[in-house]
Amino acid sequence: MKIIRSIHALQKALDSQRRRNKQIGFVPTMGYFHDGHLSLMRKARKENDCVVVSIYVNPTQFGPKEDLKKYPRNRNRDVRLARAEKVDFLFCPSTKEMYPQGFGTYVTNEPIADILCGATRPGHFKGVATIVCKLFNIVGANVAYFGQKDYQQLCIIKQLIKDLNIRTRIKMCPIVREADGLAMSSRNTYLNADQRERAVVLSHALCVARTLIKSGERRPHVVINKMKRMLLFKVDRLDYIAVLNATDLSKVRSISGKMYIGIAAYIGKTRLIDNIVVQTK
Amino acid sequence: MKIIRSIHALQKALDSQRRRNKQIGFVPTMGYFHDGHLSLMRKARKENDCVVVSIYVNPTQFGPKEDLKKYPRNRNRDVRLARAEKVDFLFCPSTKEMYPQGFGTYVTNEPIADILCGATRPGHFKGVATIVCKLFNIVGANVAYFGQKDYQQLCIIKQLIKDLNIRTRIKMCPIVREADGLAMSSRNTYLNADQRERAVVLSHALCVARTLIKSGERRPHVVINKMKRMLLFKVDRLDYIAVLNATDLSKVRSISGKMYIGIAAYIGKTRLIDNIVVQTK
Repeated sequence: MKIIRSIHALQKALDSQRRRNKQIGFVPTMGYFHDGHLSLMRKARKENDCVVVSIYVNPTQFGPKEDLKKYPRNRNRDVRLARAEKVDFLFCPSTKEMYPQGFGTYVTNEPIADILCGATRPGHFKGVATIVCKLFNIVGANVAYFGQKDYQQLCIIKQLIKDLNIRTRIKMCPIVREADGLAMSSRNTYLNADQRERAVVLSHALCVARTLIKSGERRPHVVINKMKRMLLFKVDRLDYIAVLNATDLSKVRSISGKMYIGIAAYIGKTRLIDNIVVQTK
Repeated sequence: MKIIRSIHALQKALDSQRRRNKQIGFVPTMGYFHDGHLSLMRKARKENDCVVVSIYVNPTQFGPKEDLKKYPRNRNRDVRLARAEKVDFLFCPSTKEMYPQGFGTYVTNEPIADILCGATRPGHFKGVATIVCKLFNIVGANVAYFGQKDYQQLCIIKQLIKDLNIRTRIKMCPIVREADGLAMSSRNTYLNADQRERAVVLSHALCVARTLIKSGERRPHVVINKMKRMLLFKVDRLDYIAVLNATDLSKVRSISGKMYIGIAAYIGKTRLIDNIVVQTK
């Protein structure tokens, strides 16, 4: 595995792969790998000739009061784990490389960037769309792999790709969970023992929502209220519970087709998200 | 010359060129060709194996009260002219192809999109940056050719390419002028005989500014006032006269280095722009 820090060096290496007709798979990350990240690398490894993983904690997607500085990092461990997954290129650019002085171009996604996580984190998805557009242009991958955990992000990236005619295809991979159901996240490391125990309520509430829907419930407010009662007992602050059309995150009057059920909540000061996609008949 | 209307068909044709290691030159236009456009095609033809010209009157760069509907079009003449320049692919997409239903991703350039033409035409450069980003991703050219006439647009495109890591290089080509000095523009067709005669004042004012600077004048306001006196006599409304740093369009206290001198003014209802770049010692 080659560790590459400059855009130019990465492009040179990947151009050489392309000239030999190698299919390139790409996993963009913020590092501090957990099994979720590793599952994406494994899928990319299986489906491509060449696997690129990027590690970059993108400052433009963090708000001024968010956890950019204390976001967990462990480069040595990440390198070891990526190497074990037989990644070919680990791209670790500096902020000077990604946002040089005078930087001023941003990508925005108007219809769905301001709801859910975008409502609580203004500017977050503008930062995400911009860095993803940059990374896609730098890597020029055939396929990029994302986890379902950041479902809204994935919807925005899919739209960005379609709207800006980017030629990288997207694959969404399932959420990887701890044994008790908690969705894996680098931010889980912020939780103390009591918080960790309470955090499992997000996945439990989603599980109950799925059961309700599978047993025929079609009223969004009934599903939401049931989840709310479970959550308010355990979390310190509820951000949102959403039951939306899974394709475009639009509101629905009645549950039908492919539905996204999402939660964001604070346990202590840690903001956790989780979601499921439920297909009704 | 192949006339292509679908993005998919164009990409297929260009992929085949790339597989054969052909260098692709690209000239994006809004059609209604004049010698300025043709000079870009000629340069692209000379420097590349394969030349792509696009014709698309991009609605997102026109304001609600601007001339989108009456912008001059003559497809048959354009086809004839492009063929004569030995263009390989003429890309003429529909708006349904470029902005399908649900479109919602835009590219913005914050530092320089709101001054000069951006101040008079709010949202104009957001539309320009978005369509250029789309066209660059669709065509994947090695080099794209733009005229100096849209100087601010060119600065924005250069920054967009740098910021979003687009791999197409940009070449700026000189303004092509009528015999009396008027910069060629598709919008010149709007002018009646009297207006056409008065329109030459833009290039005359720039010529005088150049002479002033070449003879040692270093005070921007003196150059601007001299031009203003010439223009107010002939134009119906002055939009701006600017003397700025040519690299980043920043303000200067004193004229030095590479300077951009730009004018925008209305002759009747037609808004005309022109500029020169002057290098001081």
